[in-house]
Amino acid sequence: MKVNGTHYRSLWWDHDKSVLMIIDQRWLPHDFRIQPVETLEDYATAIVEMRVRGAPLIGATAAYGMALAAQLDPSDRALEAAWQMLNATRPTAINLRWALNRCLAALRPLPEAERASAALALAHEIADEDVEINRQIGAHGLELIREIAAKKPAGEPVRLLTHCNAGWIATVDWGTATSPMYQAHDAGLPIHVWVDETRPRNQGALTAWELGSHGISHSYITDNAGGHLMQHGQVDLVITGTDRTTRRGDVCNKIGTYLKALAAHDNGVPFYVALPSPTIDWTVSDGVREIPIEDRDSREVSHVQGVLENGDIGLARVTPEGTDCGNPAFDVTPNRLVTGLITERGICDASEDGLAALFPDLAKQ
Amino acid sequence: MKVNGTHYRSLWWDHDKSVLMIIDQRWLPHDFRIQPVETLEDYATAIVEMRVRGAPLIGATAAYGMALAAQLDPSDRALEAAWQMLNATRPTAINLRWALNRCLAALRPLPEAERASAALALAHEIADEDVEINRQIGAHGLELIREIAAKKPAGEPVRLLTHCNAGWIATVDWGTATSPMYQAHDAGLPIHVWVDETRPRNQGALTAWELGSHGISHSYITDNAGGHLMQHGQVDLVITGTDRTTRRGDVCNKIGTYLKALAAHDNGVPFYVALPSPTIDWTVSDGVREIPIEDRDSREVSHVQGVLENGDIGLARVTPEGTDCGNPAFDVTPNRLVTGLITERGICDASEDGLAALFPDLAKQ
Repeated sequence: MKVNGTHYRSLWWDHDKSVLMIIDQRWLPHDFRIQPVETLEDYATAIVEMRVRGAPLIGATAAYGMALAAQLDPSDRALEAAWQMLNATRPTAINLRWALNRCLAALRPLPEAERASAALALAHEIADEDVEINRQIGAHGLELIREIAAKKPAGEPVRLLTHCNAGWIATVDWGTATSPMYQAHDAGLPIHVWVDETRPRNQGALTAWELGSHGISHSYITDNAGGHLMQHGQVDLVITGTDRTTRRGDVCNKIGTYLKALAAHDNGVPFYVALPSPTIDWTVSDGVREIPIEDRDSREVSHVQGVLENGDIGLARVTPEGTDCGNPAFDVTPNRLVTGLITERGICDASEDGLAALFPDLAKQ
Repeated sequence: MKVNGTHYRSLWWDHDKSVLMIIDQRWLPHDFRIQPVETLEDYATAIVEMRVRGAPLIGATAAYGMALAAQLDPSDRALEAAWQMLNATRPTAINLRWALNRCLAALRPLPEAERASAALALAHEIADEDVEINRQIGAHGLELIREIAAKKPAGEPVRLLTHCNAGWIATVDWGTATSPMYQAHDAGLPIHVWVDETRPRNQGALTAWELGSHGISHSYITDNAGGHLMQHGQVDLVITGTDRTTRRGDVCNKIGTYLKALAAHDNGVPFYVALPSPTIDWTVSDGVREIPIEDRDSREVSHVQGVLENGDIGLARVTPEGTDCGNPAFDVTPNRLVTGLITERGICDASEDGLAALFPDLAKQ
């Protein structure tokens, strides 16, 4: 999507320098910094430190990491070591393992001499696929927005709520949860988006930055506010992304998603989750019991990053010094609270049958 | 309760200077600043700017404001003007109107010459009553904690979750939601408190500061985390405060309370609300429909206060510049989600019958 009028993807290959370029998202929305990813360690660091983030983007980044590994040493042993190293960076996002497995499975049968160029071509393919998948998710989600708009007086905006950033910078382009929003806006449908702040890392500020850059009406709200808004009829539709969705449709996503799903359910507000099929973990059924939840650094909670009064980007410690902070990064929304899943092949129930009907080829695995 | 080993109330009368002293809570937990409240404008400012905050403390502060008004001009007209001015400071906390009405009703029948001293005596009485009420709330809440502890292996802590600061600095002393925690700790029962951050103003940092000062084990968590903790059996009991509770037991409290009540209900975790009877609004029944919700300044959401890396207390802007922020300050938890109300007269169902049985004298109003 566009930044200051220029179209960007969230990562791209610099053909002159043969290096991956990323937007270092740690400085967004306050500063737009582009940086190269040059070594395997750089790849791991970029994912661990959340310079790149969002399940689909992590997957695409990991594919480029495998391409670099194949270029440095195309042996099975080296590729497997790269797989291990990259897979260990984030435990929750299933796209990471999906992309790494896909690369390894494609490269292993090839002669070593062909692996480097094949790996790079595959990384490009995965990135391009992600763009197309998200475009399709947006087209399906657009129909939901269109249906709600049709029931409203002309000109009255459809009010969506989203949690975290499942935007274009969490994918290669379009985003998952935001893709329907961009497409609705581009189709001339009036929308307003309630943007959850999403503590501790305030990824809502990324969503606000994205939507603002695209000219979409939005309000930034605390994570506490959504239930109240739903009680008072201020939310027509919730769409979030997901880091991993189980075969029966339990949704593991950014911490706090479950609370919004409960509020949506309690107030009869439709709660949809947008996801590309690589985010489905067909090996897992009961999300609450089976998905390991990443516990992240206490400082993400105790310290908040922002623009200080002198214009610098800095940290403010909000807790008393030495306070213990808990920081579970994700939670699981049981499928009973999910109205539907918006995938690249259409919208289905959050159930084993719903997913299997759309993805019979994958569900059999 | 104690600050660095010295016992404080959250407000007290300086008899030498004939002035009310408060802790300016805007700087907590980072700085402990005491200041006098000298003019009627000071009183209004202290409440509007949340130098004093918390429904019971606002009520007690307003009573001292009426005492000052009676000293400056004891006429009916002047007292009514003071009532108007102070009542307009915060629209949600019912204790404010309760205290103001109590003062006006007590002073009106008196000769003007007696009003100043009577008003001051009444303010002292309201403050002392608040302390005693909260002590009693704690004694009743302690029994709940004791029952849970009795079902656990010896030494395993009872894990409570609380939202916002319903602590001793939100009252004159003891707090409402925290009173059972202090009394359990003092009785030697092991407890651990999950402290919700409570954006936008991070009053969880006040609760963490209070609990830390008293030596109570606690963890500060984002507002998003509680549902996940409840799903995984990490919360035995939720206790929050309230700014206004309706005659049928709907609970208006800090924004986000409703979301925690939904999660508690979904996971079978008992959800209690601690409240002194002046927090009950017997004139209101349906909280969602009838209670006006204060919309506060957008900057409370866009800017976060904390200790900067240079040690100064400062602000960090977390949103893109110019982002519109919504800031509803409270929400309403319907009585169906509330396990019980902990009052100074005991614990009752969150229902009209429950409250009327404990407070037959007040329910008839």
